[in-house]
Amino acid sequence: MTDFLTLPERSPKPRTTGITHVLDKGLGPSQVQDLLAVAAGSIDIVKLGWGTAAVTNNLPAKVAAYQERGVPVCLGGTLLEVVLKQGKLEDYVRWVKGLGIDHVEVSDGTIALDHDEKLAVIKRLTKDFTVLSEVGSKSENVIFAPKRWVMMIEKELDAGAWKVITEGRESGTVGVYHADGAVKEGLIDEIRDAIDPGQLVFEAPGKKQQVWFIKHFGSDVNLGNIAPEEVISLETLRLGLRGDTLLHFH
Amino acid sequence: MTDFLTLPERSPKPRTTGITHVLDKGLGPSQVQDLLAVAAGSIDIVKLGWGTAAVTNNLPAKVAAYQERGVPVCLGGTLLEVVLKQGKLEDYVRWVKGLGIDHVEVSDGTIALDHDEKLAVIKRLTKDFTVLSEVGSKSENVIFAPKRWVMMIEKELDAGAWKVITEGRESGTVGVYHADGAVKEGLIDEIRDAIDPGQLVFEAPGKKQQVWFIKHFGSDVNLGNIAPEEVISLETLRLGLRGDTLLHFH
Amino acid sequence: MTDFLTLPERSPKPRTTGITHVLDKGLGPSQVQDLLAVAAGSIDIVKLGWGTAAVTNNLPAKVAAYQERGVPVCLGGTLLEVVLKQGKLEDYVRWVKGLGIDHVEVSDGTIALDHDEKLAVIKRLTKDFTVLSEVGSKSENVIFAPKRWVMMIEKELDAGAWKVITEGRESGTVGVYHADGAVKEGLIDEIRDAIDPGQLVFEAPGKKQQVWFIKHFGSDVNLGNIAPEEVISLETLRLGLRGDTLLHFH
Repeated sequence: MTDFLTLPERSPKPRTTGITHVLDKGLGPSQVQDLLAVAAGSIDIVKLGWGTAAVTNNLPAKVAAYQERGVPVCLGGTLLEVVLKQGKLEDYVRWVKGLGIDHVEVSDGTIALDHDEKLAVIKRLTKDFTVLSEVGSKSENVIFAPKRWVMMIEKELDAGAWKVITEGRESGTVGVYHADGAVKEGLIDEIRDAIDPGQLVFEAPGKKQQVWFIKHFGSDVNLGNIAPEEVISLETLRLGLRGDTLLHFH
Repeated sequence: MTDFLTLPERSPKPRTTGITHVLDKGLGPSQVQDLLAVAAGSIDIVKLGWGTAAVTNNLPAKVAAYQERGVPVCLGGTLLEVVLKQGKLEDYVRWVKGLGIDHVEVSDGTIALDHDEKLAVIKRLTKDFTVLSEVGSKSENVIFAPKRWVMMIEKELDAGAWKVITEGRESGTVGVYHADGAVKEGLIDEIRDAIDPGQLVFEAPGKKQQVWFIKHFGSDVNLGNIAPEEVISLETLRLGLRGDTLLHFH
Repeated sequence: MTDFLTLPERSPKPRTTGITHVLDKGLGPSQVQDLLAVAAGSIDIVKLGWGTAAVTNNLPAKVAAYQERGVPVCLGGTLLEVVLKQGKLEDYVRWVKGLGIDHVEVSDGTIALDHDEKLAVIKRLTKDFTVLSEVGSKSENVIFAPKRWVMMIEKELDAGAWKVITEGRESGTVGVYHADGAVKEGLIDEIRDAIDPGQLVFEAPGKKQQVWFIKHFGSDVNLGNIAPEEVISLETLRLGLRGDTLLHFH
């Protein structure tokens, strides 16, 4: 391999920082095998985005394929939001356990959910699952003050969330981003002053967003909603092997 | 499955409404199998876009793979436009029949074709194939009045078209869309007043476009030019399992 | 096949003009097989983009898969830029030879490299490899005068480069393009007046860019950084089988 080159340090798997959290929005069996063959060493968790798990024809086989290679599978938060709207939390728990899935996401990006109620859901789910909670709205029109971001993140970690995800969507245009995809830098700075970034996963689907976080937090920043076809590219950005970060690291 | 949730009604396959019409612009054998494994229940017809069929190395195997799973294959209209320009309609018919393909698209998005001549082509092809005709130009600069859209659609249905497709291209920036991808809402309203939407397939490659049509026409609207990797996402939009339509349905 | 149609002439493989140069930024084993099954006849060289080769888990198998089908593999220039920054050129040569790769790219899109030194690297590498050199910066802010482009291209060809690539990146927004992706037409005209276009490969990831080059240079223009999923589309553009070039050729 290229061990004649000096590259930035990267935590080895299983990692608690430097996590690459991948968005699967409908990959087929060969695509899953391809992703694992090329990049298993760079993938820490796969999210079956929003409610895709409910309409995926081959769900049990997909879950097994990831887990056999040591990659945990997480269900998207939007599915749980529908479940909460319909008051079916315990049915959901049974269904997820039946699938052998051990990571779930708790979000309120679309539905209106009292924060104490969200914390109660997080607490309930930590009994059976590793919980990733998510802060931030999926609407461009809902904007939280930085102090409210910090307060919600702290309370969700206290309630038992393993990591808290900062919202960006598949598009990277809401939550911690302006509508044009630019990072809300002041917001991130305030969050960073209060919270250990190792406890956060920043959704960062766009290359410019990934570059920004790597330059500001280092190679081992936790990044989420990474498209499967961008996993290898992200790994090169973390190591200074793409033009965008080459001069930052070398 | 998630039968503990109440979801919007969806017609079962084979459907005449609620159709998802997928654009294949060069998928390989494993990609076709992946698409069918994950989403066969959500796919009603696959179009081999524009003239891709003429340069696809493995065409007969691709056609067979779809048909074995009950998914009809349709040839893109642009290929037929070249055929018409060269006066080779009967050669085309023989070639398509030899491939075992039973759906063809008749369009005039690029070439200038007298509408009576287009209707004659539709009539001729209905003898051997199920015909999808398409209305609308591929040029941003060609704009038809709503009444002309309605008149052309009605005549093409009368000529024997199974469904009429409204043009959007792969980009979603022409035909029934403004150059920025926004739906021409007044145009769609006038078409809807005159034509049963079940006889139409709206090309809607963009997520915002899909969301607009689902909110205005319901879960069972016919949508076309769906990218293979967006089929599962579209199904979640139809069922209110993605943030964009969750509050509309739940 | 569609031999009843009259289509523009295309050079057969192995070609020296009409080259389609494909960007692989992390394809898996099935994706490589899919690409070859559908489009091997249209692919002349595959580049493992920037430093992706250094983090691809299954690199030797990937290289073998392409080569077995007669498709040469080339390493991205950015990886070599890191190598040059660290003074490891001979280690790089040994590593690449060990992989059985026989094409390399020499670029200075990110690092500052004296042009004489770049020419010396090209000369050195021609002893062991077929060299594609690249002219142009990856930064939007670095703009060369047309005369400097011509001078650099001529010197790099003199130094032994097989072809010179004009920079466009994966995004198509730098080098020979304006930030909005439009072709710098005056620049291309000046290059064309001085250099045989058969000695150039124009990076052209966007469809509009591909259309522009095909209309100005013909079906057999050399185009680079083509996304795998766009190879078939590009072939249809070259043959007038897509709306964008239909009336140009038919």
